[in-house]
Amino acid sequence: VRRTQAGDLILLISADDKKFLLKLAGEGELHTHQGILQHESMIDVPLGTVVHSHLGEPFLLLRPTLQEILLNTKRKSQIIFPKDIGYILLRLSIGPGSTVVEAGTGSGALTTALAWAVGPAGRVFSYDSREDMQALARENLERLGLEGRVRLIVRDIEEGFEQRDADAVFLDLPNPHDYLAQTREALCNGGTLGSILPTTNQVAQLVRALREHGFQSIEVCELLLRFYKTLPSRLRPEDRMVAHTGYLIFGRSLHE
Amino acid sequence: VRRTQAGDLILLISADDKKFLLKLAGEGELHTHQGILQHESMIDVPLGTVVHSHLGEPFLLLRPTLQEILLNTKRKSQIIFPKDIGYILLRLSIGPGSTVVEAGTGSGALTTALAWAVGPAGRVFSYDSREDMQALARENLERLGLEGRVRLIVRDIEEGFEQRDADAVFLDLPNPHDYLAQTREALCNGGTLGSILPTTNQVAQLVRALREHGFQSIEVCELLLRFYKTLPSRLRPEDRMVAHTGYLIFGRSLHE
Amino acid sequence: VRRTQAGDLILLISADDKKFLLKLAGEGELHTHQGILQHESMIDVPLGTVVHSHLGEPFLLLRPTLQEILLNTKRKSQIIFPKDIGYILLRLSIGPGSTVVEAGTGSGALTTALAWAVGPAGRVFSYDSREDMQALARENLERLGLEGRVRLIVRDIEEGFEQRDADAVFLDLPNPHDYLAQTREALCNGGTLGSILPTTNQVAQLVRALREHGFQSIEVCELLLRFYKTLPSRLRPEDRMVAHTGYLIFGRSLHE
Amino acid sequence: VRRTQAGDLILLISADDKKFLLKLAGEGELHTHQGILQHESMIDVPLGTVVHSHLGEPFLLLRPTLQEILLNTKRKSQIIFPKDIGYILLRLSIGPGSTVVEAGTGSGALTTALAWAVGPAGRVFSYDSREDMQALARENLERLGLEGRVRLIVRDIEEGFEQRDADAVFLDLPNPHDYLAQTREALCNGGTLGSILPTTNQVAQLVRALREHGFQSIEVCELLLRFYKTLPSRLRPEDRMVAHTGYLIFGRSLHE
Repeated sequence: VRRTQAGDLILLISADDKKFLLKLAGEGELHTHQGILQHESMIDVPLGTVVHSHLGEPFLLLRPTLQEILLNTKRKSQIIFPKDIGYILLRLSIGPGSTVVEAGTGSGALTTALAWAVGPAGRVFSYDSREDMQALARENLERLGLEGRVRLIVRDIEEGFEQRDADAVFLDLPNPHDYLAQTREALCNGGTLGSILPTTNQVAQLVRALREHGFQSIEVCELLLRFYKTLPSRLRPEDRMVAHTGYLIFGRSLHE
Repeated sequence: VRRTQAGDLILLISADDKKFLLKLAGEGELHTHQGILQHESMIDVPLGTVVHSHLGEPFLLLRPTLQEILLNTKRKSQIIFPKDIGYILLRLSIGPGSTVVEAGTGSGALTTALAWAVGPAGRVFSYDSREDMQALARENLERLGLEGRVRLIVRDIEEGFEQRDADAVFLDLPNPHDYLAQTREALCNGGTLGSILPTTNQVAQLVRALREHGFQSIEVCELLLRFYKTLPSRLRPEDRMVAHTGYLIFGRSLHE
Repeated sequence: VRRTQAGDLILLISADDKKFLLKLAGEGELHTHQGILQHESMIDVPLGTVVHSHLGEPFLLLRPTLQEILLNTKRKSQIIFPKDIGYILLRLSIGPGSTVVEAGTGSGALTTALAWAVGPAGRVFSYDSREDMQALARENLERLGLEGRVRLIVRDIEEGFEQRDADAVFLDLPNPHDYLAQTREALCNGGTLGSILPTTNQVAQLVRALREHGFQSIEVCELLLRFYKTLPSRLRPEDRMVAHTGYLIFGRSLHE
Repeated sequence: VRRTQAGDLILLISADDKKFLLKLAGEGELHTHQGILQHESMIDVPLGTVVHSHLGEPFLLLRPTLQEILLNTKRKSQIIFPKDIGYILLRLSIGPGSTVVEAGTGSGALTTALAWAVGPAGRVFSYDSREDMQALARENLERLGLEGRVRLIVRDIEEGFEQRDADAVFLDLPNPHDYLAQTREALCNGGTLGSILPTTNQVAQLVRALREHGFQSIEVCELLLRFYKTLPSRLRPEDRMVAHTGYLIFGRSLHE
């Protein structure tokens, strides 16, 4: 069984099922509704240990899942939902060893998922024109110790990407149609572009531009996630659901 | 730019957009509607090369995406759809280095995605009581060179799993509710169980059993994927869609 | 152009688009956030007239649509949503001259729609075991002057319906499967039963009972209504939607 | 119990559940896969009778439901689906006595539903520039004996509608945005316009025009209808569904 160490991102679950995500540091304290916990007391203990606040309240110490990490991203902007991120990773074929370019970084939720998925052998290059957003994304990545896999680049991508032969490029911008020439330069032959857009007008504009730039296998889709109430004798969907996060658009860049 | 070598799984795209997935072997031949291609002529060439059949027809040689691989799984049974696999990987937090247990193996589509996502540092243990299914799954894994990350085990999981401290267990069986004690033994503290079931009756039965076995954070959901026609001046959903693949069920095993 | 008369149910729309539904009576007053309106001043005026409150604020006087009436039903219980009522009316073939039986009456939203659709030549028989619910439904029907088309019956339908040869029977109860013999007695040959149920468990139970009682053309469905934001240059779905109101179940009673 | 008469539209159901819709005429014959039936033998018999073909095969004789009639509309063009028609009738508040204008007539499925819903006291005015479509719609209406409630008008609605003070106008045309001035002239104060359009581009164009023409309470929505398999011990959605029929758009015309 793994033991925690300073720098780990951990999850604490209180007896009343509240969750706390924190990065263990030598001298920190976590203040909760059920008392204070010293970081020091949570270092070098086995995952799954029950630790106690100064009030004696129990907290279960675990490793957070990627979904818990993503939903806890510190944000200054709308983040991409886990349901969409799961499909994006699969559709862009992002896995251990992949090289992927992203613009814009935003709060870094997708950046985090990309860095997590490419593993230590992969590389993520993430562009944003705003330094403050990149600072926030860096903070989010550092909580996870993933900053080593990501290069954050402040630059107007109008000037192009620095990378060539990337496996995938993801454009999370209002006007991806303006950067398709730059995207094709950065992608390997057969590499995939992805994008997410909220409005049908933007989708139509991007699809038109993808055709003009010679992208193939263009796909537009949307994912609807419906949750169910979990009473087994009264199984039924929840009353309300998210009706829209964004349309997902994909295309393959083929040279020759 | 990467060059192909014997043993690689590659994708060929014909001029009329037909796709062929094949594993390069020294002496093989691929027969297509546009002529024959010798494997030998496709070894040690750069990805992105245009190769020609004996009729002179061009084929673009690329690396396949995970989605293309999954949709091409040789199957004797229903496979899990990519939309569900993407969410399962994220929700179970399967990434480089993960240890995951699966039952049953079936045709091995999810097994393939798990092996792909855990990377060289991860491990997949996949159980099935039928040897013929495991032989098929092995064949599917070998096409990708992923068989080294997977241990295929023929065993009735009524007897329990051999693993302990797994990050996640996925049960792709008609009666997952019968194996929750075994699942809890195999999972690490805080580890996640996932399952996919076609009928509401099965979901109710599993949710009831999850509660009885003390699983936490039980979630039941379904994902609807809707594609759009890609004419920019006539943007609209496709006429028909898949209405149901299965309900996804997740729960966390907490000890203590 | 029609003129209003005492007893009409009318709709007032304020300048800031607030809607007020009221039944015109000789001496009443309507108190709003923009002043008071005398009923008397709204009688014998053309529909479409702008009337003014004692503060001089304008209100447009119109005839309400059925949807506005339904959404304004005074309620003590969950009412059936318009999206479902529209489909139920069509599916049960309720139109001018139809004879339809309903149980239970509840707050009377569906009763209202049925009475509205069958016209002066049709008949609605609505059962409920609770007198207070029927009193509320009566009040809702009287606002519209539709009470003459409806007979409200306080009775436990375990004892059977009084009608025979009805075109349709709608069961809005938690346990419709308990009343299928009674329903068949009340329906004409080829007549249709409809029901709405919130949980999958209830649906399974009803479908089983429908088969046992020899109903044909059994159909189970659900309707999802998704609204869009109406900015033409940023057309996109609303962020959230109703994920579930109920499953609709239909079956045809065939004698012989 | 009602008895059939010459001119009735009836439904025959064979023992293997095939359905036949026909209008009873004195001397006609119906040829089926299970033999021939003389119309004469089906006149003046009670609804619910079992009649027999010349081969002795039984057929149950019933009155068809509106849905069966709509799905059997003879068509030269795409018809509006029952799920959408149910919501349109409710949303436009079409009931006994309503006056409604429609353009274009098309094959007449919606025309039929409108004529059916307005009853003998209502009126439908349906415009189409193509005489052949109106001839087909007339044929569909005559099968039902509903032609007396409908005036079919061959005219380019660019010139305007002949009606004033209509309760509702429904535009089933590719370019409804071109006829909003004409629509406002035809509608009563507070009357509702409805339209159905397949593409997001058309919806954006119509919404823009509705705003320019001063329509209020603009609503854009879509209805998804999902069917379930009706095995009670294996309750689950059908594998596939209709993903799109059209977007529904509504707006209220307010004068003053």
